Amino acid sequence: MSSSTQLPRIDKIGPLSPEEAKWTELRKIEWTDQSGKPRIWESAARKTRRETGIDAVAIAPILRHPSKPISTMLVLQYRPPVEAVCVEFPAGLIDAGETPEQAAVRELREETGYVGTVRDVSPTVVADPGLTNANMQMVTIEVNLGENDEPPEQHLDEGEHIERVIVPLKDLYQKLQAYSKEEGKIVDARLFHWALGLHWAGRLDLKS
Amino acid sequence: MSSSTQLPRIDKIGPLSPEEAKWTELRKIEWTDQSGKPRIWESAARKTRRETGIDAVAIAPILRHPSKPISTMLVLQYRPPVEAVCVEFPAGLIDAGETPEQAAVRELREETGYVGTVRDVSPTVVADPGLTNANMQMVTIEVNLGENDEPPEQHLDEGEHIERVIVPLKDLYQKLQAYSKEEGKIVDARLFHWALGLHWAGRLDLKS
Repeated sequence: MSSSTQLPRIDKIGPLSPEEAKWTELRKIEWTDQSGKPRIWESAARKTRRETGIDAVAIAPILRHPSKPISTMLVLQYRPPVEAVCVEFPAGLIDAGETPEQAAVRELREETGYVGTVRDVSPTVVADPGLTNANMQMVTIEVNLGENDEPPEQHLDEGEHIERVIVPLKDLYQKLQAYSKEEGKIVDARLFHWALGLHWAGRLDLKS
Repeated sequence: MSSSTQLPRIDKIGPLSPEEAKWTELRKIEWTDQSGKPRIWESAARKTRRETGIDAVAIAPILRHPSKPISTMLVLQYRPPVEAVCVEFPAGLIDAGETPEQAAVRELREETGYVGTVRDVSPTVVADPGLTNANMQMVTIEVNLGENDEPPEQHLDEGEHIERVIVPLKDLYQKLQAYSKEEGKIVDARLFHWALGLHWAGRLDLKS
């Protein structure tokens, strides 16, 4: 974040008219429920979805190093909708003509500099299905590091300010608690659930 | 779902004007970035957030039974914004005057009939911070079952159609894949990430 010279700030929040909105829209959904009753549901949507039908990919990086604990990589960036720095997995929208796997490898390289191998691709999952149609695929990427590798350069777009952080998996749950409770950052729900799954797996006997 | 007599269907999707919207709104955020540049961000928000500042709770149920595998409980319900049946953790909005813990115990009882003990409460986390300010807390609730307990009755609101499903944790990841790839249902991203965390925890040596 060498080009950062000040903290981001909100100047004004106001209503956005449908005429002015370029990226988002509200939708009125008229539907008939299981008992035959007509109902209305309000939802929000991105206007940017391409013919793939998938908005975005997120990447769960698994970093393996010869002498350091197995780790993941998080990104920290200011998110205007929540007016705070968010702690998230690397992620991004899928470009035209890209597969989710290609988008994931590209976004991981751009946001963190690291290049890895795709190990798992999720089905299409939805971020908040009571409110929006926003969807994504989750791609697990393994990165194998050498003993003396220097951290690679990020390849950020102009205007992107993204900090990367390596966190050992055994420390992840506590680290996310600390970001939230001690540092005033906000953790992405999906990342938190992944960490909570890891955390409970260590406390429960899943074989029983 | 004894009152269900037909599959839900979408009749019409159209634009929703700000004047007509009761539950949702679009916002224009004017902000200044780290390099001092003025920028615009578009976001969507619920209009229903109360003074607690938290929109919703989700519940990760942990079911313990004397002779059956340790399990979780999922809910299946039609979600108009994604035009499909979604597979999710039990969840709901927080009522006025409720703590997140109280809302979680109440929602679990309403949606599934089961009553349990709060074991963990997450910090406030955000569902999709590039698009909305929607936030939530994740409450882990342990339910201890007796050997011959009958499934309890649900306490659904009028017009709610929610099916509950018990899934052993060791089968969860494969079950979510099957819902998505074989049954045409859509899995909530947060639930999927929790399952993915459990899944990877079993494949990685987190102590190393």
